[in-house]
Amino acid sequence: MRPSNRQPDQLRKVTIETGVTRYAEGSCLITFGHTKVLVTASVEQGVPPFLKGKGQGWVTAEYGMLPRSTHTRSRREAAAGKQSGRTQEIQRLIGRSLRAVVDLKALGERQIIIDCDVIQADGGTRCASITAAWVALSLACDKLKEQKLITGNPIIDQVAAISCGVYENTPVLDLDYDEDSSAETDSNFVLTGSGHIVEVQATGEKRGFSRDEFNALFDLADKGAKEIFALQLSALGR
Amino acid sequence: MRPSNRQPDQLRKVTIETGVTRYAEGSCLITFGHTKVLVTASVEQGVPPFLKGKGQGWVTAEYGMLPRSTHTRSRREAAAGKQSGRTQEIQRLIGRSLRAVVDLKALGERQIIIDCDVIQADGGTRCASITAAWVALSLACDKLKEQKLITGNPIIDQVAAISCGVYENTPVLDLDYDEDSSAETDSNFVLTGSGHIVEVQATGEKRGFSRDEFNALFDLADKGAKEIFALQLSALGR
Amino acid sequence: MRPSNRQPDQLRKVTIETGVTRYAEGSCLITFGHTKVLVTASVEQGVPPFLKGKGQGWVTAEYGMLPRSTHTRSRREAAAGKQSGRTQEIQRLIGRSLRAVVDLKALGERQIIIDCDVIQADGGTRCASITAAWVALSLACDKLKEQKLITGNPIIDQVAAISCGVYENTPVLDLDYDEDSSAETDSNFVLTGSGHIVEVQATGEKRGFSRDEFNALFDLADKGAKEIFALQLSALGR
Amino acid sequence: MRPSNRQPDQLRKVTIETGVTRYAEGSCLITFGHTKVLVTASVEQGVPPFLKGKGQGWVTAEYGMLPRSTHTRSRREAAAGKQSGRTQEIQRLIGRSLRAVVDLKALGERQIIIDCDVIQADGGTRCASITAAWVALSLACDKLKEQKLITGNPIIDQVAAISCGVYENTPVLDLDYDEDSSAETDSNFVLTGSGHIVEVQATGEKRGFSRDEFNALFDLADKGAKEIFALQLSALGR
Amino acid sequence: MRPSNRQPDQLRKVTIETGVTRYAEGSCLITFGHTKVLVTASVEQGVPPFLKGKGQGWVTAEYGMLPRSTHTRSRREAAAGKQSGRTQEIQRLIGRSLRAVVDLKALGERQIIIDCDVIQADGGTRCASITAAWVALSLACDKLKEQKLITGNPIIDQVAAISCGVYENTPVLDLDYDEDSSAETDSNFVLTGSGHIVEVQATGEKRGFSRDEFNALFDLADKGAKEIFALQLSALGR
Amino acid sequence: MRPSNRQPDQLRKVTIETGVTRYAEGSCLITFGHTKVLVTASVEQGVPPFLKGKGQGWVTAEYGMLPRSTHTRSRREAAAGKQSGRTQEIQRLIGRSLRAVVDLKALGERQIIIDCDVIQADGGTRCASITAAWVALSLACDKLKEQKLITGNPIIDQVAAISCGVYENTPVLDLDYDEDSSAETDSNFVLTGSGHIVEVQATGEKRGFSRDEFNALFDLADKGAKEIFALQLSALGR
Repeated sequence: MRPSNRQPDQLRKVTIETGVTRYAEGSCLITFGHTKVLVTASVEQGVPPFLKGKGQGWVTAEYGMLPRSTHTRSRREAAAGKQSGRTQEIQRLIGRSLRAVVDLKALGERQIIIDCDVIQADGGTRCASITAAWVALSLACDKLKEQKLITGNPIIDQVAAISCGVYENTPVLDLDYDEDSSAETDSNFVLTGSGHIVEVQATGEKRGFSRDEFNALFDLADKGAKEIFALQLSALGR
Repeated sequence: MRPSNRQPDQLRKVTIETGVTRYAEGSCLITFGHTKVLVTASVEQGVPPFLKGKGQGWVTAEYGMLPRSTHTRSRREAAAGKQSGRTQEIQRLIGRSLRAVVDLKALGERQIIIDCDVIQADGGTRCASITAAWVALSLACDKLKEQKLITGNPIIDQVAAISCGVYENTPVLDLDYDEDSSAETDSNFVLTGSGHIVEVQATGEKRGFSRDEFNALFDLADKGAKEIFALQLSALGR
Repeated sequence: MRPSNRQPDQLRKVTIETGVTRYAEGSCLITFGHTKVLVTASVEQGVPPFLKGKGQGWVTAEYGMLPRSTHTRSRREAAAGKQSGRTQEIQRLIGRSLRAVVDLKALGERQIIIDCDVIQADGGTRCASITAAWVALSLACDKLKEQKLITGNPIIDQVAAISCGVYENTPVLDLDYDEDSSAETDSNFVLTGSGHIVEVQATGEKRGFSRDEFNALFDLADKGAKEIFALQLSALGR
Repeated sequence: MRPSNRQPDQLRKVTIETGVTRYAEGSCLITFGHTKVLVTASVEQGVPPFLKGKGQGWVTAEYGMLPRSTHTRSRREAAAGKQSGRTQEIQRLIGRSLRAVVDLKALGERQIIIDCDVIQADGGTRCASITAAWVALSLACDKLKEQKLITGNPIIDQVAAISCGVYENTPVLDLDYDEDSSAETDSNFVLTGSGHIVEVQATGEKRGFSRDEFNALFDLADKGAKEIFALQLSALGR
Repeated sequence: MRPSNRQPDQLRKVTIETGVTRYAEGSCLITFGHTKVLVTASVEQGVPPFLKGKGQGWVTAEYGMLPRSTHTRSRREAAAGKQSGRTQEIQRLIGRSLRAVVDLKALGERQIIIDCDVIQADGGTRCASITAAWVALSLACDKLKEQKLITGNPIIDQVAAISCGVYENTPVLDLDYDEDSSAETDSNFVLTGSGHIVEVQATGEKRGFSRDEFNALFDLADKGAKEIFALQLSALGR
Repeated sequence: MRPSNRQPDQLRKVTIETGVTRYAEGSCLITFGHTKVLVTASVEQGVPPFLKGKGQGWVTAEYGMLPRSTHTRSRREAAAGKQSGRTQEIQRLIGRSLRAVVDLKALGERQIIIDCDVIQADGGTRCASITAAWVALSLACDKLKEQKLITGNPIIDQVAAISCGVYENTPVLDLDYDEDSSAETDSNFVLTGSGHIVEVQATGEKRGFSRDEFNALFDLADKGAKEIFALQLSALGR
């Protein structure tokens, strides 16, 4: 039995509310149960130095947790003077995941910066961030098209992420914090709408895991991703 | 005429919603028009080293702006590796303002850390932060009393803050961003429910100002603070 | 009775010696009783990036305390790897105060950097710094005029600062360290020669204060500033 | 055809030389073709603060590349003042991989720090580091047993890592730099001697990949790991 | 001919004024021509961690230059966020030089921190700092004896430093900035009152130098040091 | 008797192996007994900003120790976030030593960066680094000539370094760690093939030393350097 009484293959309630900030070119607030992440997409002229003059754009991401988004307060990274290894790992993953479904040439020499700020954390914040980042990015690209700044569509596929894990020897979908902190295995799958894999990360937290277990996690992820892809489209009114 | 069509002595619509996060001992979301700040109060055992063994507690504050809380994206302070001078100035002010109305002995050897995170900025974020911080702090103290961890009431007065300025030669209450960015004079008043002054900061941004102008700002602040004190009590259900 | 036996409205002995360093375009050593601050004004070609090509100059300030300028040694900020919040707050205040009386267009595309280094601290270092900074800045502008690098006079008014506070329930002028560390209220007034207010900062350190007390502090500041303006002019030989 | 003329399932020549430094409790130099990593294991009394008094030890890892271990010189991280996100990600992975096969209780309250320094990089440095780290860690544990500082054996399984990728649409084992920089998919598998999975990371660098491709990579990893486990034992003279 | 018209073996005018700050246990202002350094000695209870419980004291030094102590303004190290390599090299040298003539056991478990702050730089600041540091340190030890906190005399010898160089092919004593910036060879000698060498550093800035040249520099240093030792004693009133 | 049974004027066994890395334009591994340093020379287009457009090149050096190159593990500087004062002092010395024998004009507008990484430390790492750096630099210049990127020879002399010290009252050549850690005096001589001195640093670690002792150290250094110059040439096959 899962602490939340969910079925092994049941997602938490997922909601995606768009247009939640006044200034960002794209924005949404995503919830996965008690996990809440505010995501904005900001369009900036110009590209990082390594891309100057190459006729293409760039998409990158930053991630942060509000100090009291967690059960006990974490130190504010700005006060500590640096981003933790975990933060950097997550923001690199978000950026890679998005770039896998973006035609950077179609963006022109501009950069879209995604900011994922966790308001409340109950497990799965990196997956919620990737999922919402795709929505915010899509909205920002829509705006560029409306403003006739670009002609083509830089978004070539959907991308979303979902966590799975082995909890009390049962493979389960969408771990919440209670499950995550005691799961034997934790994994994150970043998948595309057209059925490809962008990134898989699986870790045996408490013990190694078998290939059968891994395949069961993969099946759960496939199922969960399909539901999430539908929610992304619905949030965009498509 | 103010850009927002408000009367010179008219506040923006102010709302204070409490209990907005699941984990913090006290929390609220304050809005002043389009300005939105999420404030949490976290109780921690122990005090900073300079207070060890003195039989008293401590209250301190941290402040941050989400990168895209502003019209154009600002650099994330955690990525920059330090908090700006402005950030430090504001968080020091919030801490001082709260400590002016707290009986630190009554807290016992524990610390309450206030986190003020600006979700959307349209002027007046430091005043909104102080005003909301008092509410979150009160909620956290209520919780300490409920849990019988303290007996007395550490909160000895209300405290709130409001900005005023001279805009197109007219003293006005509660500057929004449009006014703030072109005001001749900008000031912040931190006042207590019992009618005392905790902090006054007034700056001639474009030109020096006269003592008469200053007194007019002070009168506006007194009027605005009274309305805000009522909203604080109402948010606490008193 | 004040620890220094001064009258409530009596300044400490203030001296301003100009031309104290060999290289700086303007310099002076100011003393307020035992407080001593060495101030230099350095002229540099060019302006910060945000002003490039706008046909105007800039004035900015930095502040520091020698490690043993205080009763007990403070950590050297260069060794600590960062400037404290207090240091940043003070240097921002000095810069703002000076810019309020400078015609930045008349400076041309050059920057004047003021360095205020506290040799000995006995209260009032930020006020002494602002007061001396105006003298050093004036000397640097005189030099620019002598060298025919500018034609107009960028200095459009005098500016000086003075602290006041409520000490044992009496409003007093120009707090020294003994008073400052036990005053109920501490305030700094930055005023111009033509009678305007540039900046007011007042804090209830031990308790809130009343508007009457505040007005009494303001009256003391007005009186003190007049004496200081005369000393500034005298230091410049005018 | 692979640039190195290897078969798709063929490892580069792998060598592990032990005892290569005079001071470390355990050490080895591993080569995977032109990739060379020097790994040391250092035993230190005591554990990190979060483990104090829990009756267990700790294993952690640090990773670095010599500035000219790469085709063009990279900036020295010590001079840059921080470790890159990539470096932190790799050293966290090495630490997690080792802890999956160590009985931390059997170590007692001591810490073993693994240092992996890349002398020459030609792809696969993180996998080579993990593989060699297990050898160095085993040597350090042997030394603790010889010195009768511990009685049991903290090493409960072998662990090694290997990269695989899809190169010109063919799944291949053990990518070198030429392959890695143009592969469509890159993956790292951390596996145990007893056949469990500790960590899987797979990224579609150029395009998403299919589940069939992923399974082919997994098969290659299984085959390669078996060869590497034998080399580890041989290096230890078992 | 030297730019200053001095003889090759002639020091600049050297003055040492003691007791120049109100708070430090020892202090002096040293001038070597236009070079001016303010030096304080601060006594602190306790020693650095590596000396805890060893029944001895410690002497260490810090060095800094005011930003406009030089011909053109240098960046403030506190603002830059770190001390330069040159600064660290100099403060390490000052500390070593002093410890060579101090009986650390006689100090007891306390630390004396020397702060050397360059008010105006015209060459030779590190030598002036060492020379003055010995005076400030002696004054601080005198104070400890007066207060009966120590019984013996921790100062076992005098120490002073002087620069020499080959300027236009002539060995000269006590380089000023004009000479230093174009000298072929630059050297610093740290010598004791009893005729020993504590430290020698000689660099061929423009070209290598011969052993004969080096010996000539050494002779000059010996002569100069004798004069400086007399000035140190005179400053202490001995 | 020296711990290593060497004669007072006897070097440890010194070897220099060239071409030890695949990518660097010049490289060698030097050993002085148990001390091992890996040195690479990297050629980069362009020069530091202060040399732009001056028609000359630059040579600079960086130095690091692997964390477990020493008896007990030292903290990794990249993890600590800064290079120690000692590291900076050494890398500045290496750079100065090399530039003393290089015709920077002959290099053209390019920079050669020397990286000295200590694999194992047993005393004398800075001298070994300088000695090997000259070899790596020469190899890199040879490569530039082969590629016809330069016509002249930028290397105008040999340079090498050797340490000497007074150990148990006897001047000895080439201190190893055992001697270094208990020597009364430690010195480093950087000398050129043509018999000039580039840099001398001598420190009385335990006590001051006499000029006679210093001269004896100098004689030893001269003898040792001659042997090392021959080894450098031999390593280059000349």
